[in-house]
Amino acid sequence: MAGKDNAPSERTTVRRMAVRGEYEKSTVAEILDEGLIAHVGLSTSSGPIVVPMLYGREGDILYLHGSPASRILREGGNAELCVTVTLLDGIVVARSLMHHSMNYRSVVVIGEAHSVDDLDERARSLDVISEHVIPGRVAGTRPHHEREVKSTLVLSMSINEASAKIRTGPPIDDEEDYELDTWAGVLPLSVSAGTPIADPRLAEGIGIPEHISQWSR
Amino acid sequence: MAGKDNAPSERTTVRRMAVRGEYEKSTVAEILDEGLIAHVGLSTSSGPIVVPMLYGREGDILYLHGSPASRILREGGNAELCVTVTLLDGIVVARSLMHHSMNYRSVVVIGEAHSVDDLDERARSLDVISEHVIPGRVAGTRPHHEREVKSTLVLSMSINEASAKIRTGPPIDDEEDYELDTWAGVLPLSVSAGTPIADPRLAEGIGIPEHISQWSR
Repeated sequence: MAGKDNAPSERTTVRRMAVRGEYEKSTVAEILDEGLIAHVGLSTSSGPIVVPMLYGREGDILYLHGSPASRILREGGNAELCVTVTLLDGIVVARSLMHHSMNYRSVVVIGEAHSVDDLDERARSLDVISEHVIPGRVAGTRPHHEREVKSTLVLSMSINEASAKIRTGPPIDDEEDYELDTWAGVLPLSVSAGTPIADPRLAEGIGIPEHISQWSR
Repeated sequence: MAGKDNAPSERTTVRRMAVRGEYEKSTVAEILDEGLIAHVGLSTSSGPIVVPMLYGREGDILYLHGSPASRILREGGNAELCVTVTLLDGIVVARSLMHHSMNYRSVVVIGEAHSVDDLDERARSLDVISEHVIPGRVAGTRPHHEREVKSTLVLSMSINEASAKIRTGPPIDDEEDYELDTWAGVLPLSVSAGTPIADPRLAEGIGIPEHISQWSR
């Protein structure tokens, strides 16, 4: 997040990069699929707001879901959003504080979001979001009730205007600093799952399913 | 991120909660101190942008740092920003897809950001940000060169207009669903550090310092 080699995505850059090769398209998709939450920005009359939201990807469509009280869900239909997903891969430890950085992969998706009004699509979009967070969970859970689908807000947007930024590798120090007696390198970071905690109200005899015990990112 | 019990922060809510007790103030500080990166939103003439940035807190001041190419760093002085930090604590696994959620702690800080122009304050702010990411690193690294401080952009903003949202605990299912034969509970998540990877150009005989080998969040 520092250094010229890894400039954050800017709206103008994303617009410029809207036409891009299949390679970047697949990179965008991979980063989105590995992330768990997105930070979604909306411009309001009193300034920008950024809220964490759950999401899922189906082809070129991104589905967004959050609290029913969310202003972005309520007002985000037909509004311009910026959806940013960031994966932290490591802390870049340099010989000067100046060249410290993060190794990361991030995607910025911009565009107009639309409310998913068709109930069949909305039910499917909820499955897409669930499968994104916990692959295998939909098959392990009862079907939606119609009233649940009716009362849930989901937004959709195209990922055609998206841009990926990636920083990898060791620190890049000033040449003179390589002689310093200072440790430098990368401290890798990852998201890891702990031991599943059963709901206190879980009935006896229900084992932990594989999609939970084997969950990893 | 779903369910009425954990509505995302909204700009209006944050404004309303600007006057709050010491308890919430310390919660906001704790969450900011545990996070690694912030997602920072800016309204532009072509729509909102959200970019990941490094940050550090000193008292009621939040310092933001990112790429020199960042439009937020260049234009963020005297602009209204929304700074959101989200810690994912677990996946809430419910008996219906509807009630799946995340356990999380998030902070939204809003307000006007200012460029840190005083070079002494800027040098100190860079130390604050470095110590935020790697406690102990400043003492283990050479002092800044003046030219480095001069060429680095840092923004500051007050955290007085901030709001914390927290979801903890097991899923809350519909009463009728508790009889289902479906595992439910929480899958805890955390950020963990792997084995430090030495810079290929690291001189022989330089050991890994404790602030790296013992790093944890």
